[in-house]
Amino acid sequence: MSADFGVIGLAVMGQNLALNVESRDYTVAVYNRTRFRTDEFMRDKCEGKRVVPTHSLKEFVEALSVPRKMILMVKAGPATDAVLEQLFPLLSSGDVVIDGGNAHYSDTEKRIQQAGKHGIHYLGTGISGGEDGALHGPAIMAGGDREGYEQVEEILVKIAAVGPEGPCCAYFGPGSSGHYVKMVHNGIEYAIMETIAEAYDLMSRGLKMTAQKMASVFAEWNNGDLSSYLFEITEKILRRVDPDTGKPLVDLILDRAAQKGTGKWSTQSALDIGSPAPTIAMSVFARVISALKEERVEAQDVLSGPDNKISADRDEFLRDLFGTVKITVLAAYAQGFRQLQDASRERGYNLDSAEVARVWMAGCIIRARTLTQMAQVFREEPDLPLVFLATPFREVWDKGQSGLRRVLAQAHASGIPIPAIDSAIDFLDAYRSARLPANMIQAQRDFFGAHTYKRIDKDGVFHTKWEEG
Amino acid sequence: MSADFGVIGLAVMGQNLALNVESRDYTVAVYNRTRFRTDEFMRDKCEGKRVVPTHSLKEFVEALSVPRKMILMVKAGPATDAVLEQLFPLLSSGDVVIDGGNAHYSDTEKRIQQAGKHGIHYLGTGISGGEDGALHGPAIMAGGDREGYEQVEEILVKIAAVGPEGPCCAYFGPGSSGHYVKMVHNGIEYAIMETIAEAYDLMSRGLKMTAQKMASVFAEWNNGDLSSYLFEITEKILRRVDPDTGKPLVDLILDRAAQKGTGKWSTQSALDIGSPAPTIAMSVFARVISALKEERVEAQDVLSGPDNKISADRDEFLRDLFGTVKITVLAAYAQGFRQLQDASRERGYNLDSAEVARVWMAGCIIRARTLTQMAQVFREEPDLPLVFLATPFREVWDKGQSGLRRVLAQAHASGIPIPAIDSAIDFLDAYRSARLPANMIQAQRDFFGAHTYKRIDKDGVFHTKWEEG
Repeated sequence: MSADFGVIGLAVMGQNLALNVESRDYTVAVYNRTRFRTDEFMRDKCEGKRVVPTHSLKEFVEALSVPRKMILMVKAGPATDAVLEQLFPLLSSGDVVIDGGNAHYSDTEKRIQQAGKHGIHYLGTGISGGEDGALHGPAIMAGGDREGYEQVEEILVKIAAVGPEGPCCAYFGPGSSGHYVKMVHNGIEYAIMETIAEAYDLMSRGLKMTAQKMASVFAEWNNGDLSSYLFEITEKILRRVDPDTGKPLVDLILDRAAQKGTGKWSTQSALDIGSPAPTIAMSVFARVISALKEERVEAQDVLSGPDNKISADRDEFLRDLFGTVKITVLAAYAQGFRQLQDASRERGYNLDSAEVARVWMAGCIIRARTLTQMAQVFREEPDLPLVFLATPFREVWDKGQSGLRRVLAQAHASGIPIPAIDSAIDFLDAYRSARLPANMIQAQRDFFGAHTYKRIDKDGVFHTKWEEG
Repeated sequence: MSADFGVIGLAVMGQNLALNVESRDYTVAVYNRTRFRTDEFMRDKCEGKRVVPTHSLKEFVEALSVPRKMILMVKAGPATDAVLEQLFPLLSSGDVVIDGGNAHYSDTEKRIQQAGKHGIHYLGTGISGGEDGALHGPAIMAGGDREGYEQVEEILVKIAAVGPEGPCCAYFGPGSSGHYVKMVHNGIEYAIMETIAEAYDLMSRGLKMTAQKMASVFAEWNNGDLSSYLFEITEKILRRVDPDTGKPLVDLILDRAAQKGTGKWSTQSALDIGSPAPTIAMSVFARVISALKEERVEAQDVLSGPDNKISADRDEFLRDLFGTVKITVLAAYAQGFRQLQDASRERGYNLDSAEVARVWMAGCIIRARTLTQMAQVFREEPDLPLVFLATPFREVWDKGQSGLRRVLAQAHASGIPIPAIDSAIDFLDAYRSARLPANMIQAQRDFFGAHTYKRIDKDGVFHTKWEEG
């Protein structure tokens, strides 16, 4: 029995993806570096299913019908290289290898080159949706060789989540475009998660609300303009009670968030291409600071500050906070789409923002009702530099900004940090400033480094001998 | 006549550095890729001086006494590599090459390896002070081969600026430590410049103050706790009148700041090593947004907002702003020193923070009176994780934070962006929070990705099946 598709790497994501493919009437060959996991997978989850276990890469390759189609679900970095080094020589020209991990886009570019030498189609492909998405339908962001994509399109489309505008799977462009889109997806994810954490902090520390009450607020928001996966799970998290203590489970979780990989890379790349991504950046740094738990515990007794109480009318504050969160979340998407446009120009990805929005509508972690509107907006104006400039999103800003300014004042007066929220207002207030104080920076640079400057009243490049006034 | 020292690259910085060395009783050989510039330099600036012009690298090398000592003042990146490729084969084992440009630290590591193959001592060395510093005394941050440093120490110490605690020159450690220290110096420089720009914006757009009045404020601040080079030149910039229009020159300068290189690298490295550098990061992004001038002009008419007027008592606001700027500038130094400590651990630099503060006391762009206090603090507690924890700086926070919170509210109410100032308060409010809302982020990560979490009430690693609750 020759398999239609292969999965290399049987951690949870790989297992679930294999089961997903199998469920769409394909025979799937699987391989894992350690035999034990393959056997366990076969025993526990594959009874009566068309899953072919293999115990060496050679056996795996031989189990696949030609041209072979396979996906790697292996840890990004050296582990992926280790597999590819063994795999490429076993394959034939015309075979298709999908890298479904979170590879750094520069690694993907290198691997495309290597694969090309063997005549292999290599598709750097972002897959989002966590365990559950992998099993029932993830969002699939493919990039690389178009010919290769066409070979696997049918399978990928079948296993993808189905959104309001069809299967959440697309080919985005050449090279590392798929992994780049996934990286920025994760950057947006970091920013939305940090925004939720800040709103939760303001309600919890600031308004002393119970977990149950906060759950109701998130439920309400999730029923309104903020309808999305991350708000939905936040409600569920807040409702969860620890059976041992009877306390809300979230209160017992250590406040130390890991950061590594995609959120960081997204920010680093934004810096490289000169794309404004402050909200994503501040969300990564918020995790960095959260990791300094012992220091924070000590610093609390050393550095003075207000008592964290927000002394506003609760209902009014929550109304303002709703608008604040809407604007901040929108800022995360706005910056992410902007970064994709800038990267597309810089790196030749030829990305279609509407198509990105469409693929993110279901399956992935940042799926949200607002993406339907965003796709629409980008269809009407593909080169829209910032979603806030389009009517529906401009209105979110127009309506929410006064409340946002009140929330900022109250939060800062209370001593509760709100880096993502702050970054959003500063970003928007800067973006809508025809004149910024960067003229001072240019004057300083010319003063100490003779870097020269331009003027607003005439053309040319100028240098002033400032000391000789 | 055999030269004591050589300078490769005769742009302004290289020329001035050559003249500086010559002025300390050394004979200096110079070389520039284009002969014209060498001849012009000799004719215009070297009459009667012990400067030896050379017109090929071979001639340059032969003009130097052995072991040869030389500095490269060449554009960082490929231009530096191009020179080194030609230069290394001409040198002898034991010669010393100083790279005085703003090389990326990873390039410096590579070049140290290459130089080592030829037995050449390679010193990645940050030089700060602009044109003027190069001529009269820069701050010199050396790193790399200690044996090599000992060969050139006498010359470097003699040409360095003299600060309150001696010549501003030091060997910081192995590898790329010198360039890393300079990179973070520049990151801090970005943040202080942005802080000044924001204060200027608040006074200019917010309080509608004239350039002359603002100059007086900066003069006052520069006479107080903010005494430093960048505040000094800001006063001078504000006083400068454009002869053609009679207007303040700064008002005529285009508000579009360049960003490339060191500030960006500093942020990218902070992300890589997980060091909290939000104020530096936001300053880089502020320049990115400033560069979008055309977009900003268009967005001003699309996105609504307040009228930028700050309706506070001017004197009270300025008093609050003084404390605000002190805290924000201190946050920039605090984050920079913290990054150096983190990098030192991560990269084995073995940096001495007190020595870094000492070298920055004069000659460089971020020289400031407060560095004397900082050196003192680090001498007493070399591993102090954040300068705000030491008494003198804790007091700046204690005294200034109420005013800072008022400034934030007023700035945000006016619609003037203050990303650096915001990042400072958010950083400090987060740092002094024993409990942050990152528990929510960990719960979310466990919910959708089974990333597991730790608890505050018991040891172990936990995973919850959140959907089955």
